[in-house]
Amino acid sequence: MTQNTPSPPSATIRFGCAWYPEHWPESRWDADLDLMVAAGMNVVRVGEFAWSSLEPQPDRFTADWLERAIARAAAHGLATVIGTPTAAPPAWLTTRHPEVLRVGPDGRVHRHGKRCHFDPLHPVYLQHCRRIAGWLAERFGSHQAVIGWQIDNEFSDLSHGPVAANAFRHFLRRRFSDLDQLNRAWSGAYWSLAYDTWDQIEPPDFRGGDHPGLLAAWRDFATEAWTAYAVNQAEVIRVHAGSRQFVTTNATFEFARQDSHVLFAGLDLCAADVYLGSGAPLVHLDPGWMGVYLAAARGVKQAPFWVMETQPGTIDWFAANPAMDPGEVRRMVFHQIAHGADAVLFWQWRSAPNCQEQYHGCLIGQGGRPRPIYDEVATVGAELRQLAPLLASTSVQASVAVLWTYRDRGLIDSRRLHQGFDPWRHLRDQYAALRRQGIDVDVTSPWSQLDGYRLCLAPHLAMLDPALEERLLAYVAAGGILILGPRSGTRDPDASLLPSDPPGDRLGAALGGHVRESYCLTSPLTLAGDIAGSADIWGEWLEADAPDTVVNLRFGPEHPWLAGKPAMLTRNHGRGRIGYLGTWPDEPTLAALAAWLCDLAGVSRPWAPLPPGIEVSGRRLRGRASKGAGDRQQGVHIVINHSATGHVLPVPFPVIDAFTGAPLGTTLHLAAGALAVLIGE
Amino acid sequence: MTQNTPSPPSATIRFGCAWYPEHWPESRWDADLDLMVAAGMNVVRVGEFAWSSLEPQPDRFTADWLERAIARAAAHGLATVIGTPTAAPPAWLTTRHPEVLRVGPDGRVHRHGKRCHFDPLHPVYLQHCRRIAGWLAERFGSHQAVIGWQIDNEFSDLSHGPVAANAFRHFLRRRFSDLDQLNRAWSGAYWSLAYDTWDQIEPPDFRGGDHPGLLAAWRDFATEAWTAYAVNQAEVIRVHAGSRQFVTTNATFEFARQDSHVLFAGLDLCAADVYLGSGAPLVHLDPGWMGVYLAAARGVKQAPFWVMETQPGTIDWFAANPAMDPGEVRRMVFHQIAHGADAVLFWQWRSAPNCQEQYHGCLIGQGGRPRPIYDEVATVGAELRQLAPLLASTSVQASVAVLWTYRDRGLIDSRRLHQGFDPWRHLRDQYAALRRQGIDVDVTSPWSQLDGYRLCLAPHLAMLDPALEERLLAYVAAGGILILGPRSGTRDPDASLLPSDPPGDRLGAALGGHVRESYCLTSPLTLAGDIAGSADIWGEWLEADAPDTVVNLRFGPEHPWLAGKPAMLTRNHGRGRIGYLGTWPDEPTLAALAAWLCDLAGVSRPWAPLPPGIEVSGRRLRGRASKGAGDRQQGVHIVINHSATGHVLPVPFPVIDAFTGAPLGTTLHLAAGALAVLIGE
Amino acid sequence: MTQNTPSPPSATIRFGCAWYPEHWPESRWDADLDLMVAAGMNVVRVGEFAWSSLEPQPDRFTADWLERAIARAAAHGLATVIGTPTAAPPAWLTTRHPEVLRVGPDGRVHRHGKRCHFDPLHPVYLQHCRRIAGWLAERFGSHQAVIGWQIDNEFSDLSHGPVAANAFRHFLRRRFSDLDQLNRAWSGAYWSLAYDTWDQIEPPDFRGGDHPGLLAAWRDFATEAWTAYAVNQAEVIRVHAGSRQFVTTNATFEFARQDSHVLFAGLDLCAADVYLGSGAPLVHLDPGWMGVYLAAARGVKQAPFWVMETQPGTIDWFAANPAMDPGEVRRMVFHQIAHGADAVLFWQWRSAPNCQEQYHGCLIGQGGRPRPIYDEVATVGAELRQLAPLLASTSVQASVAVLWTYRDRGLIDSRRLHQGFDPWRHLRDQYAALRRQGIDVDVTSPWSQLDGYRLCLAPHLAMLDPALEERLLAYVAAGGILILGPRSGTRDPDASLLPSDPPGDRLGAALGGHVRESYCLTSPLTLAGDIAGSADIWGEWLEADAPDTVVNLRFGPEHPWLAGKPAMLTRNHGRGRIGYLGTWPDEPTLAALAAWLCDLAGVSRPWAPLPPGIEVSGRRLRGRASKGAGDRQQGVHIVINHSATGHVLPVPFPVIDAFTGAPLGTTLHLAAGALAVLIGE
Repeated sequence: MTQNTPSPPSATIRFGCAWYPEHWPESRWDADLDLMVAAGMNVVRVGEFAWSSLEPQPDRFTADWLERAIARAAAHGLATVIGTPTAAPPAWLTTRHPEVLRVGPDGRVHRHGKRCHFDPLHPVYLQHCRRIAGWLAERFGSHQAVIGWQIDNEFSDLSHGPVAANAFRHFLRRRFSDLDQLNRAWSGAYWSLAYDTWDQIEPPDFRGGDHPGLLAAWRDFATEAWTAYAVNQAEVIRVHAGSRQFVTTNATFEFARQDSHVLFAGLDLCAADVYLGSGAPLVHLDPGWMGVYLAAARGVKQAPFWVMETQPGTIDWFAANPAMDPGEVRRMVFHQIAHGADAVLFWQWRSAPNCQEQYHGCLIGQGGRPRPIYDEVATVGAELRQLAPLLASTSVQASVAVLWTYRDRGLIDSRRLHQGFDPWRHLRDQYAALRRQGIDVDVTSPWSQLDGYRLCLAPHLAMLDPALEERLLAYVAAGGILILGPRSGTRDPDASLLPSDPPGDRLGAALGGHVRESYCLTSPLTLAGDIAGSADIWGEWLEADAPDTVVNLRFGPEHPWLAGKPAMLTRNHGRGRIGYLGTWPDEPTLAALAAWLCDLAGVSRPWAPLPPGIEVSGRRLRGRASKGAGDRQQGVHIVINHSATGHVLPVPFPVIDAFTGAPLGTTLHLAAGALAVLIGE
Repeated sequence: MTQNTPSPPSATIRFGCAWYPEHWPESRWDADLDLMVAAGMNVVRVGEFAWSSLEPQPDRFTADWLERAIARAAAHGLATVIGTPTAAPPAWLTTRHPEVLRVGPDGRVHRHGKRCHFDPLHPVYLQHCRRIAGWLAERFGSHQAVIGWQIDNEFSDLSHGPVAANAFRHFLRRRFSDLDQLNRAWSGAYWSLAYDTWDQIEPPDFRGGDHPGLLAAWRDFATEAWTAYAVNQAEVIRVHAGSRQFVTTNATFEFARQDSHVLFAGLDLCAADVYLGSGAPLVHLDPGWMGVYLAAARGVKQAPFWVMETQPGTIDWFAANPAMDPGEVRRMVFHQIAHGADAVLFWQWRSAPNCQEQYHGCLIGQGGRPRPIYDEVATVGAELRQLAPLLASTSVQASVAVLWTYRDRGLIDSRRLHQGFDPWRHLRDQYAALRRQGIDVDVTSPWSQLDGYRLCLAPHLAMLDPALEERLLAYVAAGGILILGPRSGTRDPDASLLPSDPPGDRLGAALGGHVRESYCLTSPLTLAGDIAGSADIWGEWLEADAPDTVVNLRFGPEHPWLAGKPAMLTRNHGRGRIGYLGTWPDEPTLAALAAWLCDLAGVSRPWAPLPPGIEVSGRRLRGRASKGAGDRQQGVHIVINHSATGHVLPVPFPVIDAFTGAPLGTTLHLAAGALAVLIGE
Repeated sequence: MTQNTPSPPSATIRFGCAWYPEHWPESRWDADLDLMVAAGMNVVRVGEFAWSSLEPQPDRFTADWLERAIARAAAHGLATVIGTPTAAPPAWLTTRHPEVLRVGPDGRVHRHGKRCHFDPLHPVYLQHCRRIAGWLAERFGSHQAVIGWQIDNEFSDLSHGPVAANAFRHFLRRRFSDLDQLNRAWSGAYWSLAYDTWDQIEPPDFRGGDHPGLLAAWRDFATEAWTAYAVNQAEVIRVHAGSRQFVTTNATFEFARQDSHVLFAGLDLCAADVYLGSGAPLVHLDPGWMGVYLAAARGVKQAPFWVMETQPGTIDWFAANPAMDPGEVRRMVFHQIAHGADAVLFWQWRSAPNCQEQYHGCLIGQGGRPRPIYDEVATVGAELRQLAPLLASTSVQASVAVLWTYRDRGLIDSRRLHQGFDPWRHLRDQYAALRRQGIDVDVTSPWSQLDGYRLCLAPHLAMLDPALEERLLAYVAAGGILILGPRSGTRDPDASLLPSDPPGDRLGAALGGHVRESYCLTSPLTLAGDIAGSADIWGEWLEADAPDTVVNLRFGPEHPWLAGKPAMLTRNHGRGRIGYLGTWPDEPTLAALAAWLCDLAGVSRPWAPLPPGIEVSGRRLRGRASKGAGDRQQGVHIVINHSATGHVLPVPFPVIDAFTGAPLGTTLHLAAGALAVLIGE
């Protein structure tokens, strides 16, 4: 996939932290900035949540302190990103306008004392957001040290109050021409659910048993609402900032309550908050979990992105919160860079003394001295400073993609049928299997540009509409290989069962096959065919309908219904090939399948087979069109040993060590936990 | 026990499904009905939940579509049961009358968008129910193809709003002559709980800590309320239907929120909804769990009953929802027939495209073609069609009963004291132990006709009142054997501790024994005496008070208080024998005890001992008085192998194979999962 | 520690029960009192919860029944403690004054039908409490048989309604000079949380994410509120009772919602409710759990205390509720006496027939006859009667203390960071380790009199302020040994992180060391140094800053950050020694450490080493100043074998058996479960 976006706003690699100067006496600032510089940092994010410090009383703005903080940072060589403070309205605002407080699905009104207690759809709140963001942009929109803007922070939930309910109804009126159409789309005859008037429609209550059509619409509505929320501020910032400063927001992909592909369409770059704990109750770095997260962030705009927040050693929201191991922060940062991040910022520099996040990790201890993790961060800072020119001239350019949509994920997650069918884990497993081939892999939407990909996996492309079917078939017809996963092609965009056997009429016709029945699995089944292995959680009885449909995998004899039935079909279509995998193979099986598919697609895997725990990633020279796998040698190769044992790797082509400049030879020795940055000659 | 009710309204065996024609274009109907016929079906249930299709606007009724659907079904040879749609009020109704919306115990008002969101006590709602049911009955009450009516669907919870609270107070005023009596019955001096006025009494809030007297009254009130709810519709239906069509409702016994013995007293037959998951988180057929459920349904009227809904392969409400095995649907249907069901209907034919139950099992796939389970259903349909005359002339006629009441079960469940003391499982264990003797067993109320039973077990007959004591003693005096189980005779009908050692003055005097102390067990204890074995969960230290009281079982040495103490007492009383079992034996021990008790009672066990997993049930010629065990040979014997291995069974008397008409010889070979229907010569 | 309080009001040992005569016909009273006398009882508690029986209608008081009950008890030789009935307002009160009903943090209004449904801050409720308590005191304040008063019962939660919210704001106005000070103390710039007006401050909602400063203030506010609630009644009782009768309340230490040291400051003695289940889901007596609870009760006033309620065999609030073993009630009562209880009352005599606590243990069965546990209670009663003069002349006088505060415990519990860091268990572990040395141990506040203690452990003294630091350093300077535990010295009293490395500037300077970093542990670490062992849950990297700081323990090699780092430091300070233990050792390690510390402190351990399960406690002659360990021989030594095996113990000094009066010799034979009471010669 050729990356078609320009280089990001800052043509360097940014390294820094979230800094809240308003928490500290001004006399402390220089000491902190000195320590940041000593850690190799070159950027701070400020302003986020600081509304009460910026506008302590209505219309009494006081940003002098912020200007001084930015100036002091700039004097230390640190650029600034300003976060708009709108995730934390000041007390006077919600006291004057209690109508903007968020109402939970249980009717509870959220109050001052925490954060995110506002209704993002309320016009009064939107006006206040525009006012404070506009005023900040007017003041700092042409400031030399300010390189960008982050709108709000980690968009959260919608309100369920009357303003939101009415906006939802208006959203539905735009989506459906009339109530009859809505009632038909939602099978209104069932349970006499049909609505007589728009006013009868209420937001879901999330107590279980909400209608799937209502839930699907609410998810789309949330995307629209938060996108409008972002645009509201982005517009007024751009009036003053022009194109000198980028505008983004920081998303949490795994917990997102909106479709990032839509949300970021109107923003300049994608920024993600990434913690070890984002993927699962993991306390240590899993390159599958964090990797799919980062690749999804990169896939939003198919371009480099920012890690706007990441973990400085520990977090505070698990049942027990052990620290990252020595070396782990370094591996994490290089893992993020290897996935296309052009900036990494730690959250946060130092904890405010009395606050909900007192125990969250940070770099400076309560006594004001660097914590042990600081030294390791400083090591990484120095390394990034050395490699910055090299890294800034490269980006990730993959020829394989995993396709997903926020809507499918929400649909399945709201009704898994098998509790183990976690769609995010499903995505992760297919991503990780491909990555074990030592290749770069994009994670993006089926609506993204697909023409550069030789192979696309779509693990659970549940919702189909004719335009998407056409798009996918065109991709295949033009030579692509597309492998659909279980549950694909079962629903329409309103969450209605399609009136055809999965994966739907058109895809099924191209495939020459269909799904006869789906089964929740309670124990693993064997698979045999072009590869052999095992699967669990979900199994579909596939049937081939065309003489040239190939059965690539069959289920073993364990399951009384699935025994001997096809588990995977493929068929040529145009210049490409379409396939359907009807089960969830385990990791080794998926890895074998990924290798088989890469070979089928002509995707070279020069590093394969990789020992377990070894991760190889590439960043290629930016702005160059794809020239096939051979070309990939040019650029940066980041090899990380996530395992607890040393490994010796054959190096498939000549490289030099990016830190020493020395040629490497034919083998790479990587101690446990070590990493290497190599430049293809 | 001689069954004293006439044959059910339809003198045949019904086999069919729930069909919602309003979900589908009329052009599809014939295809579906053809497939039903091909599956051997002869009945559909329609109309349920279809209020908005029947009365899309207030007083604008439109049942032409229903009439056409019934006519098309009739043309295919399918009779129709009409379900009144009152479990799903249309949106206009609750918009016009928001006062009928159900209020949860937490004060939450349920809204349009799900089902069962009405207050069944609200006069406005009752009037609307009567209106729609009456209008339907007027139209279809003399329709030849309509054989019966189902009122509403699976009655659920009461409202906790002001209408319900007032009705509850009126209920209490009828139950107690004055507040003083209520305060005394509820120990009002405790915690100063005594009420000064009726208005101070509020429904329970179910947050823990509700008063046991209040809870017991609320349970009785729910029974009364739902019974009145059913009568409200039954009355108006009968005006038009006369006795040509039966009137029932479909109950879920295990989750029931009302006493089915009361509820069905005014209805023509009992109908039950039975899923594998009704008994526990079971994903496969357990003849104990489903059996006790079915026997309880049969016991409601001591007569044949309908399985109004059952499982077509899968359900959708468990954490994982695996399919039934091949052959399992067949075993399930014959297990239901063997338990006295005269009709079995699957829920449902085909899932509406966009609805909360999208993923629930059904017989037709989303593409409109039969799902794999359909073929098996069709096999059963053909078999039932062949056996229908035989089966329709027979019914279950047991000489052993397990006695239970909804009130005792609710009482214990609301305060188990030992979490393992699940009263429904307790019932199931005693039922299953008796069934392992190859005998038929009724599960019914102590207020039912008992005179035909030679042996009655009452596993936890907690609540006693003088009339019930008299009834039970009369049963024993007349020659019956009654074995009370643990926790019996501890409470009065208001949930108050009786002022005597359990099992109460009169039963204790007859028993010549009492309970000295009760203990929660945390590990199993051995038992020895007339049988030997093991028990768990609960142990009672019994003491014999009369010289002729027999200690049948004693606890082994494990427990510091119970060691060597009597665990079971019996004593002759009149022409019979009363006993008390003070613990919860495990399954093999209960089976041994059941055998011992059958022999004591002269209940013949010609099939015993049965291999594990083999179930034998009998249906005898209807309307014949009991003539003892020998007579049992005449009739149908259904033998099911629920196990995964084949078995060879000695056949204790001459039989012929009902399918082939051939004599069987002295042994029956049953492959794993197979079944046989035999006719006693 | 010399105990500086006078002998308790009743110069004998009290043994009795909670008796609710209003639940029973008067004709039953004598039978019950006879049985109490036969069980050796000499006290009953009455009146608690009896408001509706005492004032059935507003201002219509009817205490004649109570007077008769007290008279009948006195005629049987039983003294009476009156519980004021204010935990259970009568229905008329809350009907007339619904504004006094408690509002939960979720906005739910609690209603009549349970208990504790009032707002303890509401002036109307306080006035009614004062009225009923005053009226009772007027009537019984000079009654010869009434020896004391218990105010209310187990103070519970505050209301979250407007009255409480306003009172909370007034509390904060007294605590902080102005809003600026509050905003600074609570880091108001964080999340724009700063308040503009006092009215914006709301009580915490306990849904997660409440501000730590708000929570800390709310905990202090609850202490103040309940203390005022108690004083409100105590004042009016004392008007009539003078000093003839004591005034107390019954606290549940482990679940307390207020600081008992503050609460009991204005009351005459401390009374505790102690059940096996108070400490954990324990179903049998653990001398560590119950011991630390009792020692904490004794530590409240550093004086003898009452066990106002304890367990008669069983409770009813666990998932399963097995009975105490034979002999266990006896061991429990002597364990309580050994910990300084001068009275032990069972809850309760007999259960009201219809009430929420129907299934709770009691001494009389539902039929009116003694339950099996009664016999054992009667044995204990007789023994206590024999030993009463001896026991009443003695009290516990320890030279070692464990220091804790309610505020630290609440702080840590509200944010454990590691789920295993249960502060009460932390306290228990250090207490139990010291007790395994066979020595008596106080559990008290750092604000108590410390000068008599040779050794003080402060397991998690999180919150520091200058006055407390000064106090602790003065204790050490004067010769004491103080060992701080992990998390000490991290916070100020507003829950703010102190601006210094733990354990804070002054303690750190005295220690000559500080905490460099803290780690949640997920697996055990070894420890080596002055002792060897293992630790888990929490590990702190300590650093010594002074040349004479001694590293007593270091972490083993397991943890990547902690390997080889100091785990415990000590340093001489003045005539004493201050230390810091930065981890949570396991039980054997803590026991070894306790032994080491005792030896360091010159605390003699004549009974050590004790076999597992053997507990030794001492009561010394009251009113005598401490004269060192040798003196300890004089007094009573209670030796309990909690284990299931017999033990032979060397007796370190001449003793006589208190029951027989015979000299014992040099060894004590204790069968499994047995106990001995010895008198030092």
